Amino acid sequence: MTQENLFFTIASVDDALRRLRAEIAPLARTETVPVASAQGRIVARAPRSPVQLPDFTRSSMDGFAVRASDTYGASDSLPAYLTRVGEVRMGQRPTVIVAPGQTAEIATGAMLPEGADAVVMVERTQPFGAGEIEVLAPVAPGENVVQIGEDVERDAAIVPVGRRLRPQDLGGLLAVGLTGVDVVARPQVRILSCGDELVSPEQTPELGQIRDINAPMLAALFTAAGAEALTCGIARDTFDDTLAKAQAAYAEADLLVISAGSSVSARDLTSAVIARLGAPGILQHGLAVKPGKPTILAACDGKPVIGLPGNPVSALIVARQIVVPMIAHLLGALPELPATVRANLTQNVSSTTGREDTVPVRLTLRDGRWLAEPIFGKSNLIYTLIHADGLLVVPLNANGVRAGAEIDVTVF
Amino acid sequence: MTQENLFFTIASVDDALRRLRAEIAPLARTETVPVASAQGRIVARAPRSPVQLPDFTRSSMDGFAVRASDTYGASDSLPAYLTRVGEVRMGQRPTVIVAPGQTAEIATGAMLPEGADAVVMVERTQPFGAGEIEVLAPVAPGENVVQIGEDVERDAAIVPVGRRLRPQDLGGLLAVGLTGVDVVARPQVRILSCGDELVSPEQTPELGQIRDINAPMLAALFTAAGAEALTCGIARDTFDDTLAKAQAAYAEADLLVISAGSSVSARDLTSAVIARLGAPGILQHGLAVKPGKPTILAACDGKPVIGLPGNPVSALIVARQIVVPMIAHLLGALPELPATVRANLTQNVSSTTGREDTVPVRLTLRDGRWLAEPIFGKSNLIYTLIHADGLLVVPLNANGVRAGAEIDVTVF
Repeated sequence: MTQENLFFTIASVDDALRRLRAEIAPLARTETVPVASAQGRIVARAPRSPVQLPDFTRSSMDGFAVRASDTYGASDSLPAYLTRVGEVRMGQRPTVIVAPGQTAEIATGAMLPEGADAVVMVERTQPFGAGEIEVLAPVAPGENVVQIGEDVERDAAIVPVGRRLRPQDLGGLLAVGLTGVDVVARPQVRILSCGDELVSPEQTPELGQIRDINAPMLAALFTAAGAEALTCGIARDTFDDTLAKAQAAYAEADLLVISAGSSVSARDLTSAVIARLGAPGILQHGLAVKPGKPTILAACDGKPVIGLPGNPVSALIVARQIVVPMIAHLLGALPELPATVRANLTQNVSSTTGREDTVPVRLTLRDGRWLAEPIFGKSNLIYTLIHADGLLVVPLNANGVRAGAEIDVTVF
Repeated sequence: MTQENLFFTIASVDDALRRLRAEIAPLARTETVPVASAQGRIVARAPRSPVQLPDFTRSSMDGFAVRASDTYGASDSLPAYLTRVGEVRMGQRPTVIVAPGQTAEIATGAMLPEGADAVVMVERTQPFGAGEIEVLAPVAPGENVVQIGEDVERDAAIVPVGRRLRPQDLGGLLAVGLTGVDVVARPQVRILSCGDELVSPEQTPELGQIRDINAPMLAALFTAAGAEALTCGIARDTFDDTLAKAQAAYAEADLLVISAGSSVSARDLTSAVIARLGAPGILQHGLAVKPGKPTILAACDGKPVIGLPGNPVSALIVARQIVVPMIAHLLGALPELPATVRANLTQNVSSTTGREDTVPVRLTLRDGRWLAEPIFGKSNLIYTLIHADGLLVVPLNANGVRAGAEIDVTVF
């Protein structure tokens, strides 16, 4: 009984992947890249915030900075009267101090002046003669104000190891002044095509030959999955040529893919070559799938080596099932959520008819069901989006969504 | 009544986008790129196949090339006896001719020799003495053979204009010898940030200032959507500085995004500046969404200009709703399918328990329901994947899926 026959007992994709993952450690290679170009990269070391954000108390409304206690009991019929002592300019340290009975005009995003502890939105005030305003409703201390550290605390972890960086994650890093981030190096994937009938796509085939399209198709697929994928030419259907080319490709690869010849004898050749690349060698020959049954999974001295069927449809379909998850494994990427997740809402979300509300939600899996927990943070806190896994849209003509309702979350 | 007030009647996202699209023509700029690096690009001119594929009659099995009529009536108990006259080597024009009563050994992918019109798979044959084989079952003409042009005919359109190129599309182009493809140029998107409180992410903010994270976050989002997105610095909250920087950015943009200041006065400034960039100017000021109500949509001399809210959460959420679809519009991209589509199967798909089958399907929308039509082509025809919109997976322990069943299609 040859080694090939020994292993040609088919396994499910899940079982085969589990066996291969158990033999392969994620890549230890990392690199520091500029945050602005880090989208899609995998976090290697969890960055911590060197600052608190915001680092000053900030107004979240256009209005008037006040001492909240000066507004208690204020109403349309019985306004509070406050003296306007100045204005806080955007982007500057305030030059004014708000004493009891006083107020300063303030714009959204500006720094709260000393003495003030809340902001009355402009719509709830009225000018009253020169240098005075009427406040028509009370505010509580902290109302319409973003507190120091409310977005992120100093030394807080910003994004977890394994996170595939999204636009909002880049924003969160830049917001605290981190302009570089440590990410996992792109796995080097090498693709070797085998077959006497193959010529490279640039060549004109003789009668009986075809162009090798597997290598460039697979390279495109693996690049999109986060690898650096290079094609390594075409091996002839001889043991010596295939072994020599496979060894050369293996030497510079983190993961080697061999697109086998399509005949049974060519596949046997591939399997004999893979068995020579390193220990323990072939873990699985044959998958319980169609197309793609003659797939080979091997671990050779710590590197995954995958033998794909030669026909392009099988090769591409099995590569999605086997190689793409192995690239994610090498990257140490956290499990990827599907683009849309059907989940049960954990809390009521209110909305207004005639307006489409978008609410960031966090997703957790409990007893096989996804739960979507709305994140109600103020809309000017970028960390509400960093802690979110996706967005819930409450349609134009709904009054909200009740807790327990089944909703579609757009992962983002 | 100022121009801003005139237009501050809120509209739904759909209505606002419809009005903007009506004013903006898709980009006419195209470029020719190597197919191997064209993944994700949008097809500008539909390529046609210069050849037929395959251009020779090809075996789809390991077995024996025969004249089908020689096998009629063959069975286990009454085999047909054929004389083995040779073997067809992979990648070569056959040197043998199959006369009546003769056969030639042939591997999957090899060229059918003259005289033969079918292939008997090796499992249905038996060696019989020297130079003869027994055929244990009949084959019809064309059985286990891929005909000339069966994958794609000469002059057939390969991929439609507007297609976002996938790995299999690259394979289909390369298979017929097309190594370059005409795609739509990447839209030049420019992003201008406004606000006296902003400093660039590399700078350390003074008290009262914050880092501008909107521009780099938006650039990452737009890059992923297929644009070439560049940030253009920060404008101060004055009409002159904002107008000068907006005009400079507009001059080199196909689409200009202005991330407005967060206060009402800063937003009024943005709207006054946008109104000066070109005709007809502001189409919509105010969206029926939360967050993101103060969004501005404008068409200025044929270019879209979008004013986004200053706060980063609103900016990012509205950019997904408004700017990403406008980038797709500029690209002339066909409507994007979601990652997973729930559809009704149009035909029975059979499968075998203990095997996970993947079947390419074509999706069509009828009366608001998605229909999934299985593409049953031979698994070695790459065009089955090019004509497919996605994949249906029949699970390990199912015997198949019945016509009419509701299934999830993974778009691919």
